[in-house]
Amino acid sequence: MHEKKRRIVILTEGYFGGLEAKTATGLIMYKPEEVVAILDSTKAGKTVQQILGFGGEIPIVAKIADSLKIQPNALLIGIAPRGGKLPSEWREVIKQAMENGLDIISGLHDMLNDDPELSALALRMRVKIHDLRESKPYNKVSTGDPSLIKSQVILTVGTDCKTGKMVTAFELARQARKFEWNSLFIATGQTGIVIAGEGVPIDSVIGDFMSGAIEEFLIEKSNYYDLLCVEGQGTIIHPGYSGVSLALIHGSLPDAMVLCHYPGRERIKNYRVKIPSLSELAQLHEEIAKPVKPSKVIGISLNTSHLSDDEARREIERIEDETELPTVDPVRFGCEDLINAMEFLRSR
Amino acid sequence: MHEKKRRIVILTEGYFGGLEAKTATGLIMYKPEEVVAILDSTKAGKTVQQILGFGGEIPIVAKIADSLKIQPNALLIGIAPRGGKLPSEWREVIKQAMENGLDIISGLHDMLNDDPELSALALRMRVKIHDLRESKPYNKVSTGDPSLIKSQVILTVGTDCKTGKMVTAFELARQARKFEWNSLFIATGQTGIVIAGEGVPIDSVIGDFMSGAIEEFLIEKSNYYDLLCVEGQGTIIHPGYSGVSLALIHGSLPDAMVLCHYPGRERIKNYRVKIPSLSELAQLHEEIAKPVKPSKVIGISLNTSHLSDDEARREIERIEDETELPTVDPVRFGCEDLINAMEFLRSR
Repeated sequence: MHEKKRRIVILTEGYFGGLEAKTATGLIMYKPEEVVAILDSTKAGKTVQQILGFGGEIPIVAKIADSLKIQPNALLIGIAPRGGKLPSEWREVIKQAMENGLDIISGLHDMLNDDPELSALALRMRVKIHDLRESKPYNKVSTGDPSLIKSQVILTVGTDCKTGKMVTAFELARQARKFEWNSLFIATGQTGIVIAGEGVPIDSVIGDFMSGAIEEFLIEKSNYYDLLCVEGQGTIIHPGYSGVSLALIHGSLPDAMVLCHYPGRERIKNYRVKIPSLSELAQLHEEIAKPVKPSKVIGISLNTSHLSDDEARREIERIEDETELPTVDPVRFGCEDLINAMEFLRSR
Repeated sequence: MHEKKRRIVILTEGYFGGLEAKTATGLIMYKPEEVVAILDSTKAGKTVQQILGFGGEIPIVAKIADSLKIQPNALLIGIAPRGGKLPSEWREVIKQAMENGLDIISGLHDMLNDDPELSALALRMRVKIHDLRESKPYNKVSTGDPSLIKSQVILTVGTDCKTGKMVTAFELARQARKFEWNSLFIATGQTGIVIAGEGVPIDSVIGDFMSGAIEEFLIEKSNYYDLLCVEGQGTIIHPGYSGVSLALIHGSLPDAMVLCHYPGRERIKNYRVKIPSLSELAQLHEEIAKPVKPSKVIGISLNTSHLSDDEARREIERIEDETELPTVDPVRFGCEDLINAMEFLRSR
């Protein structure tokens, strides 16, 4: 994949523009030059710009066949469905893509390389299947020794899934470079890994090795960077995914955390669990981090994409008053306030 | 395995009697009739009674060959090494066992069935390899809906690994039956699963499905029992395993928790992490459980096996004063005080 320039069609059937299609949105936001088309029959004929408000003239098409004239070389499964399963109706689309010479990039929990039909077809068509969540290489237990990570570590944590943890970590790393940090974004989910080209698919690692997987990756990267901005996952109060979230906290041994929130979200998506106040949740993160390595929540990051500029500014002010923490929308207004709040790490 | 009576030799080379051999100790404690010999050259010639103070005349032998006259039909890998790997020097022993017609029972993270040499030998010798940590069947995300679990759930949690969470859950289930609870022990680790014959090897399930795995098992069992006593894993402040511990809390949706501790342990075993006071740790458990389902720590369970009777009684009193919670050693003195503390669950 990395030798040739990627020309990606993203499959998002029925979901493009929504939170379920966050892998597609993320790649268009950060690597638009790699995206040649969106496959979504419910929005075919429109451009990406018309749906997202950014992304320019990238076309939305109804069928793989409609994208072939743009010469794609890969199909990306562009959604993160609950449970990570391959919807059966998408199998045909994947087969058509391979039959037309496209590689497949998948972040699903189901390893497409383990699927007899799809792997046989890949061999026959001489295309590759990239399973981003392949977890077999991980078999190390965390050492829990912060001295092995030689750079500063910021971890984004959240009030829920889909609150902007990936975008915040990415923007922190990118914008911190302007302030003379030699910083790197560390991807831990399928979207981040597609964008960064590497990372740790933490939610697919088996329980005992989750912390060790991220720790090992950070130890290696800390040889080359002085600030690692780690994408968090889920939330420590998520009924299904809290174990992954906590493993990231204790495995990445952060020097500071940023709490990410989607204004208006009152309950965990798809669950009845009520989200506590941001101050309470920040405190809970600090308390659970503390025995392994003390770490503070130094700021709040909001995803205000559904609000007007005025509403966004008011919400940022309100949360800033409520939490007494610097609050930003890193995409809309930048995250300079968070980078200032990280200044105390510089002298360590 | 379940058709024929198990006659198990337990391999614990170099570790028998120590905490590292807790699978062996657990099986001898709860299913002594299934254990015909211990394989440990460093203690060969002695009896289990001489090492553990219980277990009777079960012999300790130096080689598989020395156990054959007792007609074993299975070799159990009786330790839980850090990281779950198969020590290379044990491969020869496993091969000898298979060559003599013994099945292999393994709780290691390495799937012995995936080992080309061992699986080929098993086929040739017509013996079975039982990988207790096989995790492939699990692919459900937790629903987080407590109403689906129709019985009361008690979860044992801990200040560290190897503090008595398995034994406490087992004893709670066993002793509660005398108080007219229709109770069941729920195993989540290799030792518990060997004893119970079933369970959820939670630390081998991939991150996103850990909570779902235990929840699904409890929903099923709650059709037949009114009290499920769930074996916890690790601790929520463990640098390597905290993710597994938290997934069990949010996945098993406990109505109450019991905090297990090994008196004298001040730091997480093999780590520099200091264990907070029992009261602080109990509170942290309650705070992290609360958003998903409120649950209280109703008592403390101590493993006082290294103390004299007098020392044990004093330690129990001291902890009871310090925490203001009923405190027991469920093996030494029984756990009636905890069962009394569970009485409020009866009326739900």
